[in-house]
Amino acid sequence: MKCSVCENPATIKIERHRAKFCEYHFIEHIHRQVERVIRHFKMFAREDKIGLAVSGGKDSMSGWKILRDMGYKVVGIHINMGFGEYSERSAEIVQNFSVKENLELSLYKIEDVLGFDFATAMNVTRKPPCSLCGSLKRYILNQIANDLSLDVLATGHNLDDESAFLLGNVLYWKEGYLRRQYPVLQPEGNMVKKVKPFVRLTDDDMRNYAHVSGIEFYSGKCPNARDVTTYVYKDVLNDLEHNFNDIKTHFYFGFLKHSHLFKEPSLDVSIHKSVHYCPVCGYKTLNEGKCLVCSIKEKVSSDLSHNQ
Amino acid sequence: MKCSVCENPATIKIERHRAKFCEYHFIEHIHRQVERVIRHFKMFAREDKIGLAVSGGKDSMSGWKILRDMGYKVVGIHINMGFGEYSERSAEIVQNFSVKENLELSLYKIEDVLGFDFATAMNVTRKPPCSLCGSLKRYILNQIANDLSLDVLATGHNLDDESAFLLGNVLYWKEGYLRRQYPVLQPEGNMVKKVKPFVRLTDDDMRNYAHVSGIEFYSGKCPNARDVTTYVYKDVLNDLEHNFNDIKTHFYFGFLKHSHLFKEPSLDVSIHKSVHYCPVCGYKTLNEGKCLVCSIKEKVSSDLSHNQ
Repeated sequence: MKCSVCENPATIKIERHRAKFCEYHFIEHIHRQVERVIRHFKMFAREDKIGLAVSGGKDSMSGWKILRDMGYKVVGIHINMGFGEYSERSAEIVQNFSVKENLELSLYKIEDVLGFDFATAMNVTRKPPCSLCGSLKRYILNQIANDLSLDVLATGHNLDDESAFLLGNVLYWKEGYLRRQYPVLQPEGNMVKKVKPFVRLTDDDMRNYAHVSGIEFYSGKCPNARDVTTYVYKDVLNDLEHNFNDIKTHFYFGFLKHSHLFKEPSLDVSIHKSVHYCPVCGYKTLNEGKCLVCSIKEKVSSDLSHNQ
Repeated sequence: MKCSVCENPATIKIERHRAKFCEYHFIEHIHRQVERVIRHFKMFAREDKIGLAVSGGKDSMSGWKILRDMGYKVVGIHINMGFGEYSERSAEIVQNFSVKENLELSLYKIEDVLGFDFATAMNVTRKPPCSLCGSLKRYILNQIANDLSLDVLATGHNLDDESAFLLGNVLYWKEGYLRRQYPVLQPEGNMVKKVKPFVRLTDDDMRNYAHVSGIEFYSGKCPNARDVTTYVYKDVLNDLEHNFNDIKTHFYFGFLKHSHLFKEPSLDVSIHKSVHYCPVCGYKTLNEGKCLVCSIKEKVSSDLSHNQ
């Protein structure tokens, strides 16, 4: 098996591009895919300061090195959610990698940023754990991005993540999510610009990149994770990909081309819920009154004063 | 296992409705599902003369008896496409069933209606066989419906068929098909109204109905069939249904609720190809000039005169 570019022995095959690469040209290919997304969606420029949410998993660890090696100014942001050994191990792997690769890193603990821990948040809300964790992390990331005066916040979501999410949204015609699913969210008020530069890469690409680059990543399973939905959708899309080459790319990028359809005036009143900004912190929210985090803070301080 | 309605022993379980039925109440349930669709989509009334395309398979054979037993005036229309033993056996099964159940039947051969056979049509067009066969059958059915002064043409498409078709259209964002996929097509010019009254029933429902009603149907595979796409989509949807109860119904009926989205002005110019009517026969077509059938007729007669 020869590299599609240089005739050296190929070690990585990318079925959907009908291409085989040596390690050098695989990395070049990955960089080209990412650059294409960054430019097409006008995500950020060389001079921008980019924050990348880094969990310790294959996507964010590979993405961190990719962006830096491509010449972008990127700082990894790791949030320790306090999930025991899982969180400790994740933080350790992220820190070791930042030292080894000389990557800039900012580490935070949930309670240091928000003033309460995850268990407390679980007690005072009725959200399922994965949904609550996601909401809190998005809030923390936005706050940190403002504190550090970052130009843009990036996440490691790849094509498998986005097409699985899209499949769920389409199967249940979740009009509100379909309206918002896009690899760039423009800044608004104190909401920082958000981007997903890795949407042309798959789980396999990210895993191969980590392997080729000698990146140690964490593949432990979050002890709070309950939601297997994404795995079901990913399996189904992999089955489809097996039958119809590159269908994930067609599905996701075809959707992006047609996303104007979901911007049209809708008959579904639930998605017209007016968006407003939290009167305390200015965070964008669909809640009436305070945002989720400020509501939790209020509840926690009222419980505290009751117990005194 | 007891019937959810009458406490008699249940023989049929319908997982997605979390219901179990004895044979009597299963049939009642099936009739109710079909009646619900007919009324909701204003498909037809008791006094209307309905033509049902009857292939000899489980869906059309069950559907034929269902409509008649519900009190509708239905005539089965069977088209013999001349595919050797497959077609002979299909026609025989349809005829036997019409005699046994005293169902009205009209039988046709492709060459008697169109003046050419399928092999000839294949020779003069470049369409894949399944696509060509579908186009010709739709043309023949419409012509017969006009000849017999029918009010409406029905087909046996069920929820599995429609949700599989929808999945393919959504995965590739086939905007033109998404725009037109609806269980009722209104009459236009000499195009007869077309309806799909069985879209609330699954492959299993149809198979169970046939079994309970002692219907012998034909499950032979068409010797010309090349396209396995539908089977892949059906398998995927069955996998999803296994994980998420009743997801096919959510997916298909959710789409119908949101179908207004696809009626909006589009950026895709290819679907704005103007529809017009064939100058020879008046059939609706996307072709410029004559429709597919009239083009084939023209080609055949010009080939004949060349060879004389």
